[in-house]
Amino acid sequence: MDNLSVKHIIGIEDLTKADIELIFKTADNFKQVINRPIKKVPSLRDITIANLFFENSTRTRLSFELAEKRLSADIVNFSAASSSVKKGETLVDTVNNILSMKVDMVVMRHPNPGAAKFLSERIGAKVINAGDGTHEHPTQALLDAYSIREKHGEDFKGKKVVIVGDILHSRVALSNIFCLQKLGAEVMVCGPTTLVPKFIGELGVKVEHNLRKALEWCDVANMLRIQLERQDMKYFPSLREYTMLFGLDKKLLNSLDKKITIMHPGPINRGVEITSDVADSDQSIILQQVENGVAIRMAVIYLLAGQIGR
Amino acid sequence: MDNLSVKHIIGIEDLTKADIELIFKTADNFKQVINRPIKKVPSLRDITIANLFFENSTRTRLSFELAEKRLSADIVNFSAASSSVKKGETLVDTVNNILSMKVDMVVMRHPNPGAAKFLSERIGAKVINAGDGTHEHPTQALLDAYSIREKHGEDFKGKKVVIVGDILHSRVALSNIFCLQKLGAEVMVCGPTTLVPKFIGELGVKVEHNLRKALEWCDVANMLRIQLERQDMKYFPSLREYTMLFGLDKKLLNSLDKKITIMHPGPINRGVEITSDVADSDQSIILQQVENGVAIRMAVIYLLAGQIGR
Amino acid sequence: MDNLSVKHIIGIEDLTKADIELIFKTADNFKQVINRPIKKVPSLRDITIANLFFENSTRTRLSFELAEKRLSADIVNFSAASSSVKKGETLVDTVNNILSMKVDMVVMRHPNPGAAKFLSERIGAKVINAGDGTHEHPTQALLDAYSIREKHGEDFKGKKVVIVGDILHSRVALSNIFCLQKLGAEVMVCGPTTLVPKFIGELGVKVEHNLRKALEWCDVANMLRIQLERQDMKYFPSLREYTMLFGLDKKLLNSLDKKITIMHPGPINRGVEITSDVADSDQSIILQQVENGVAIRMAVIYLLAGQIGR
Repeated sequence: MDNLSVKHIIGIEDLTKADIELIFKTADNFKQVINRPIKKVPSLRDITIANLFFENSTRTRLSFELAEKRLSADIVNFSAASSSVKKGETLVDTVNNILSMKVDMVVMRHPNPGAAKFLSERIGAKVINAGDGTHEHPTQALLDAYSIREKHGEDFKGKKVVIVGDILHSRVALSNIFCLQKLGAEVMVCGPTTLVPKFIGELGVKVEHNLRKALEWCDVANMLRIQLERQDMKYFPSLREYTMLFGLDKKLLNSLDKKITIMHPGPINRGVEITSDVADSDQSIILQQVENGVAIRMAVIYLLAGQIGR
Repeated sequence: MDNLSVKHIIGIEDLTKADIELIFKTADNFKQVINRPIKKVPSLRDITIANLFFENSTRTRLSFELAEKRLSADIVNFSAASSSVKKGETLVDTVNNILSMKVDMVVMRHPNPGAAKFLSERIGAKVINAGDGTHEHPTQALLDAYSIREKHGEDFKGKKVVIVGDILHSRVALSNIFCLQKLGAEVMVCGPTTLVPKFIGELGVKVEHNLRKALEWCDVANMLRIQLERQDMKYFPSLREYTMLFGLDKKLLNSLDKKITIMHPGPINRGVEITSDVADSDQSIILQQVENGVAIRMAVIYLLAGQIGR
Repeated sequence: MDNLSVKHIIGIEDLTKADIELIFKTADNFKQVINRPIKKVPSLRDITIANLFFENSTRTRLSFELAEKRLSADIVNFSAASSSVKKGETLVDTVNNILSMKVDMVVMRHPNPGAAKFLSERIGAKVINAGDGTHEHPTQALLDAYSIREKHGEDFKGKKVVIVGDILHSRVALSNIFCLQKLGAEVMVCGPTTLVPKFIGELGVKVEHNLRKALEWCDVANMLRIQLERQDMKYFPSLREYTMLFGLDKKLLNSLDKKITIMHPGPINRGVEITSDVADSDQSIILQQVENGVAIRMAVIYLLAGQIGR
């Protein structure tokens, strides 16, 4: 079996193009598995995985859980809400304790950038970053790129992808930029000036503040979620204004002279980032992204597990 | 194998008498299974079931989970409290996403009447309604009728069942009325006039506002739970008055000239709907109802799973 | 197979020395299992265990869950936060209902002293006390003593163990005292006078209010957690004062003329009961305690399950 160049999945920044392509090929196999009547493989019967979610998450947690169950791994779930984290325990103590229970792999979401890397340097188990603050969300970027590959073919050279929305607070944006660039695609970001970080130019990414122009340029538009629950409104005047300037409706979509592909990491605020008729149109691959999420996570877990001496 | 006339279990209203009897016969088999030392069957190893609980529930959720585990299905749990529903996602988006993860069956409790039907018309997976607002709670009605059949025999003709309590807000009452009538039993409801809806007469149900008279008429009394946490007290003067008029104690029970069967869907408010000595008496089949709940749910899941092309 | 003298694990007070040694020998086998690449045994495939946590707990709940999974038992989880307990149901009703679902064993944590015993007298299933208020926490005491045995050998005669901290509110302290005394060790408690209960002298335990003197006397120091979230500060002037008088740092540890063993039941308040350099030193066996927790719980569950007629 081919092997990843890394020991943990902390960020796309650490991966080589060959790593990403290995993950995609492995996911191709698992995608066949999960579309069979019998969706499980007994590959990881002897592996115990701890899912540590220090932030709420439905879809990412469920997607990892399904991936783990379809690989037949044993699972323990841990969420900050009901945990001793509330009792003042440090992150290292929490995880050390879980590791003393002989867990082989940790999937972790944490509000602090760098939390996953910090852990991976201190514990013996494999670590998969399921989102660390505003830093990276590597499996999301992998499933996004995998979904583009499924629709537009394996060669990313010359493919144009625009990421629209709140780039400043988005770990999804950053991981997507790294991933698409490594695969050879051209990347643009589009959003209000207040939501595009100043360092973005240094990443070799185009910047555009006009949505129509961005859409006219691209083959694929990844419409990020506006975090209604986090938005402190200091970055732009109002949600209504955001939607007027950066929301995508069917009229705008149909006015373009080509059929671009629409993506969204979910959960969608229908009528804010995109309207329902766009989300449900045949140009949208939003549900394929969700489906591919399970296959990509099976691939990542499977490849890391292969490195464990057994 | 015989087959149900329906593709989903949304309400008893949709089922035929033959459907109900098929479910009962299937439950008979599973009841033997769960009373064996080895309580599992490998029937549904290749099925993944999502339990979506948009309202809190202990007993119904646990009962479904046990049923699924004893059929060897894979399970993913989802509760509204920790979900992206809070982030403003629509019901359809939530469920579409879960389905993109290739789930075969959805068990859903939801506060809105019609939520289960709405879903079943939009998704490819099988749907089981675990309670939709004040509308229906079909598996509860099935386990109630099954428990009566166990005690009083298969022929419901001439059997007299009274449902006592808050009929107005109760999905259990409505589902029970449909189920018992289809099986041939006579049904009466008994409660304060303010808690008996006006349309109830149209269902061919007797109405009685005097508990003693209702008990003298019936073979079986199903004492519904007063929802202490929901009661806004506009429907009757006080809880104390309710208990005086509609609470069942041992003295009243013993004063009847026959031994009627006592049921309760739980959780019991001891001293409100019924006193402890009634709940724990040999006329009570309350714990059998709980046990039968697992068998009935195994039967329903098993029969629906049999319709999935595999 | 040898057998325990008890039918449930309610408290160490009920166990004989032979019981404790049988549990230790059984745990020795399971400790080998969980250090193998394949950590599961199929022993309890036909057993269903309900974990009932009426108080929050991370490490104890996870440790039991892992123990159960590695024995291949089926598990249902129940936590008070989302349960019908909130709806006013009594403890007996809750548990009766769960038992009607044919559960073989109950692991329960409950805020009321005596809750586990109360249950064990009323239900048919096996009961394991995972902490009942300020009463007992038997599996914690067993894993603590097992960890001492691992480090200092099987013979506890003449071994000196000091338990430091809030003895008054600690079920861990009480269970540890019973366990160590039955095994033949000498036990001392050390803490502020306000946090040492008056009855402690009757248990044949030494009492010391000076930490240095206690440490000079002992071979092993078990540093209990100060319950920051519960502390009402009527028992001592301030946390800072507690740490000055009863906190253990590296300087104090190194000033002793022997290398004592440091234990802590977790979660640690680093800098309060012990400093980080003590917690992470080679004299600390804190992580071994966590690892041994899984083996001890596997042993206890396995031995009780062996009593179930199958």
